[in-house]
Order: sequence, then structure tokens, then C-alpha cells
Amino acid sequence: MAPSLSEFRKELSSLTTINQAASDAAVARDAVLTKPAGSLGELEALAIWLSGWQSKHPPSCDKPQVVIFAGNHGVCDQGISAFPQEVTVQMVANFENGGAAINQLALAFGASFSVKALELDNPTADFTSAPAMSEAECAAALAAGWSSVDNDTDILVVGEMGIGNTTVAAALSAALLGGTGAEWAGPGTGVSEEGVQRKAAVIDAGLARHRDILDDPLKILQCLGGREIAAMVGAILSARQKHIPVLLDGFVATAAATVLFKANAKTLDHCVAGHVSAEPGHKKLLKAINKVPLLSLGMRLGEGSGAALALAIIKGAVATHNGMASFADAGVSEEKAD
Amino acid sequence: MAPSLSEFRKELSSLTTINQAASDAAVARDAVLTKPAGSLGELEALAIWLSGWQSKHPPSCDKPQVVIFAGNHGVCDQGISAFPQEVTVQMVANFENGGAAINQLALAFGASFSVKALELDNPTADFTSAPAMSEAECAAALAAGWSSVDNDTDILVVGEMGIGNTTVAAALSAALLGGTGAEWAGPGTGVSEEGVQRKAAVIDAGLARHRDILDDPLKILQCLGGREIAAMVGAILSARQKHIPVLLDGFVATAAATVLFKANAKTLDHCVAGHVSAEPGHKKLLKAINKVPLLSLGMRLGEGSGAALALAIIKGAVATHNGMASFADAGVSEEKAD
Repeated sequence: MAPSLSEFRKELSSLTTINQAASDAAVARDAVLTKPAGSLGELEALAIWLSGWQSKHPPSCDKPQVVIFAGNHGVCDQGISAFPQEVTVQMVANFENGGAAINQLALAFGASFSVKALELDNPTADFTSAPAMSEAECAAALAAGWSSVDNDTDILVVGEMGIGNTTVAAALSAALLGGTGAEWAGPGTGVSEEGVQRKAAVIDAGLARHRDILDDPLKILQCLGGREIAAMVGAILSARQKHIPVLLDGFVATAAATVLFKANAKTLDHCVAGHVSAEPGHKKLLKAINKVPLLSLGMRLGEGSGAALALAIIKGAVATHNGMASFADAGVSEEKAD
Repeated sequence: MAPSLSEFRKELSSLTTINQAASDAAVARDAVLTKPAGSLGELEALAIWLSGWQSKHPPSCDKPQVVIFAGNHGVCDQGISAFPQEVTVQMVANFENGGAAINQLALAFGASFSVKALELDNPTADFTSAPAMSEAECAAALAAGWSSVDNDTDILVVGEMGIGNTTVAAALSAALLGGTGAEWAGPGTGVSEEGVQRKAAVIDAGLARHRDILDDPLKILQCLGGREIAAMVGAILSARQKHIPVLLDGFVATAAATVLFKANAKTLDHCVAGHVSAEPGHKKLLKAINKVPLLSLGMRLGEGSGAALALAIIKGAVATHNGMASFADAGVSEEKAD
């Protein structure tokens, strides 16, 4: 994809769809496995969803990919995070050295891992006084995300690191879905109640500054977003066009997904919510995009960590669907009429 | 343990406790890992719980054990299951051949797997007309479970297979916690609304038949339970005395655990609920024993399948706790005062 918003808009208007034959094959196999009908719950639905979007049956989870994007945010000047901004670059080094939570989770569930640092020494502009990014900067970040998706991946996790970015995600959420700063601001990595109020005021200032573009999701991304968020938007759409299903992570990654949802509600059909974060806005975002999370474990770290943990559920779904015996093969009697 | 109910009662009165030093070491390490405090949610609590009950730090999940017990039930004569009783022995063969859901899940998460068939050609008595087991039969099943736990296991999943056993589990639940058959009967593997009513009536008949022993949890197990359920009771207590934490599975396994809870409420401190089943009574049982499930995925298969899937969450907890860098090691700045 050429790095321009108009190219990106073209992709949004020509989305791939599921492979119905592959999905049907999964439904048919599910029906004959040695278990009462429906007794594996979401695992059954996941195997069918994977087949359809991977465009093959049986589905696979052999090469999951985790990719993390990092960005810095001018709005940090407003004092909205519990951590200093230099932590973004320090954490990128930690990712590269294998010391972060996401490294351990990717390793535990057999996923490849990479991190893309996006101009960390050139933070976005403070969105209370200017668009966070120029159109060219936003397009470059979208393209960075787009090109990061491996062609042979069978399921993608996108995650992020960026001090201050729960404020950015809350501003995006308010701009995309309506509501005030106070309705979307949360404690993030751990600010006080006073800090949450400061975040809310900063978001309200951003909404007022950019009130003229709030009808255009991609302009909202450019004016109120950040590079790592735009990169996640690009990666999620890239995966769609490559027939790669996506596990959504927490509040910030889901805010990125919501940009796509508002641009074209069908864009997230290849996505499942990996978990629901403890950050209060995440539950509201998931409801708005009609996603039920696989996990609810009180996590609020970002880094793709919740979605990476949910890879385990996908592995369970694939293992049972692909490996179980059928009633006929196992010589097990089927359900009797009641 | 000698196979007698009185020996079993002795074990219940001399329970092991957590290793406080190991638990404290886990708390201390958790506090310095490169993440905001608390941001890994339940994963952090699990790592600390594992350390305490495994009596070591760091905790491990290298040798999980899944053991399944199978039994047959005289109460099936009352027409309370959607499957014929011969399915129990057929499914045991399926377990032995690796074709069931639990085989695939144990394999996916690196657990050992074994199945113990308990006198399948000698079903328990129909509890509406007699005690399901003699005291000697119940003690033998408890002992079979007790001896099935490997000494070098680091976490145990116990599961079950037994056509008709959601009726048995519902009867146990009503006897242990109060309530009528209608309050505890559910669709199980898939009976109709009329079938659920039949289950409820059968349970009420069992409660009436055994009304004189309802103050003694082990007598309730003997009179209303089954061999696979008694074996799970034995295995859970055996794990406790060997410092092995346990992941509880669905409705039937949790009914077994509730026998222990009612005998001595501290007996389940080494247990975490792996999931909540779609069987309605399971949520009520978990509430009664004060457990919050790790997963809620609409599963209702038994076989230890939900708990085996939850092994993945344990693996994630151990991987992050043991493998992450500390702030000092990674050169990452810590939280600032807000």
C-alpha cells in the first residue's frame, strides 16, 4: 500500500470476506466430534471463525505473530501519565532484550515477536493545540503497520507501548463514539483520581480543538491519535486483506480497531476480542464494536499481553477441532432422542 | 491412605498450609517486574498462589497432570441422560486412544494424561432406593483417587466421565448446600426441559430417601455420589497433602470439591476454579465455595476440559513471573509520584 490516507480509504471499500466453504467444512466437522453438540462452547465457534477467515480447513495456529508498535505523545506535556516519557524507549529496549511480559507470553504460546519503534524522539504534537500528526505522518504510520504483517502468519496479535497513550485512546474513543473526557478517561497505568480528572480535561480540550473533523474516523486518527495507534490500524486492515484473523488486545488497541469500525463496520469481522481490560473505557469500546472478550482477568498492561494470553484459547480451539475423533471413528454412540 | 472413611476424616483434620516464605518471595519479585503494579491482574495473584502452595519460589508449571475418573450410575435407570450408559465405557476407550477433547487439551498445554475406569460394569445403586455406594465402595473410590496423584506434579487437573453424573452432581449439591432438585437440575449434555424436570424429581426422591444423613458430607458422598466423584474428592485432598495446587473443572468436579468444602472450608484453599460451565448449577456452586473462575467460555463437557484449558492461564502466569526483567535489570524508570 502506498502511504496515503486515500489509498487506505480504497482498501476499506474493498474488504475481503470469509471463505464460506472453509467455514462450512468446519461446521460439518464440529458436528461429528466425540462430544455433546455445543459442549465446547466458544472453542467451537472459534474453530469455525478461524477456518472462514484463514480461508482453509482445518484451521491452524502454528505461526501466530505478535507485533508491538511504540510511539511518543506530545500530550504528555500536560502531565497525564504516572510514568516519565523516557519509559517508552526504555521499554522498547526491554522488548528487544526479551524482558517484558509480552516476550514471555509470546514465547509461552509459540508466537513470533517483533517491536517497531516509530520515531520515539519525535513525539506527536500536543493534540490540545494542533493535529497530533500531519496527514503524511499518519499515512506513514498506517503504512508501517500495514507492512509489518507476515504473509504466512495464521493469527495476528497487535499491541502497543507509548507513555500517555491511554489518554490518546480515550480521546479517540470520545471522538469516534461520543461522550466527554470524563466518560472515557481512566487510571491507565495508575494515575490518581486527580490525574484522571486532568486526563478528562485534556481530552475535552482536544475534542474542542478538533471539533470540525469529528465526522471522519481517519481524520480523528490523524488529529487525536498517535503513531503506534495508526500502525495498529494499518496492521489490522492489512491482516484482513491477507485473510489473517486478528486477536484484539486492550483499551488502546481496541481504540485503534474502533477507527476501522467507524469507517466501515464490517472491517472488524476478522477480529475477536482477546480480553477485556481493567481500564474502564475498554468494556464500553467492546460493547460499541459488538465484541465479547475471551478473557477477563483484570489485566491492564497493553503490549498485546491480553491478546497474547488469548492465543492459548485459540490453540485449544484448534487442537480440539483438528485432533478429536469423530463418533464414527471412535465407535461412540450418539445422542438419543429425549 | 488406608481405604476407609475414618482415615479420610483424619486427613481432613490435619491439612497442610501454604509456605509463607515462598509466597512472600513471589510477592517481592512481582513488585519489581517491568510493569505497572497490578497490571497483569490475575496472573500476578496466580503466581503468588502457586508459589505458596507448591512450597517453592519460583513457581513452576512444567509437569501438569490431568487425571480423569469414570464411573457408571444406577440412577440412569430413571432416564435422566441424553446418552445411553454404554457411552461411558466407549468414551474411556476414546480417552485411551487419544480421541477426546481432553486428550487434545492436555497435549496442547504439556500435561500428562491418564484415565481410571472405576468398575464400569458395576454401576452404583440407584440412589432413589438405596445408598449409591456401600461405605467400603466409597472408601475404595476415595483411595483410588488419592493414589492417582503423581508426587512430582506441579499442578493437578481432575476430571470425570460418567453418563448421568450431572444428576448425581445436582443431588450432591442440593444435599450439601440445600435447595430442591429443581434448583440444581440442568440440561447436562443436552436433555429437554421435560428431561430436566425428570432429573429434578429424581433428585428430590434421593434427598427424601437419604434425609437422615444430610448433616455429614462424606455420608452424602456415599449415599448420593458416584465412584468417579469420590475419586475426585480423594485426588483433590491427596494433592493438598502433597503441596500440589489444583485447578477445578466444571459442575461435576466442583460438586466433588464441595464435599470437601462442607467437611472443612479450608480444604479448597489450594484450589482455583479453572472455568465456569454453562450448566446452571455450576455458577451457584462456585459462589458457595467462594471461587471466581479463570475462564467463562460456555463449555459444558466435563472430562477436565475447562480446567485443562485454564492450564494455559497458569502457564502465562508462571512465564511472566519467572521470565520478566526487573526495573533495575532492564534500566526502566519506575512510577513517579502523581
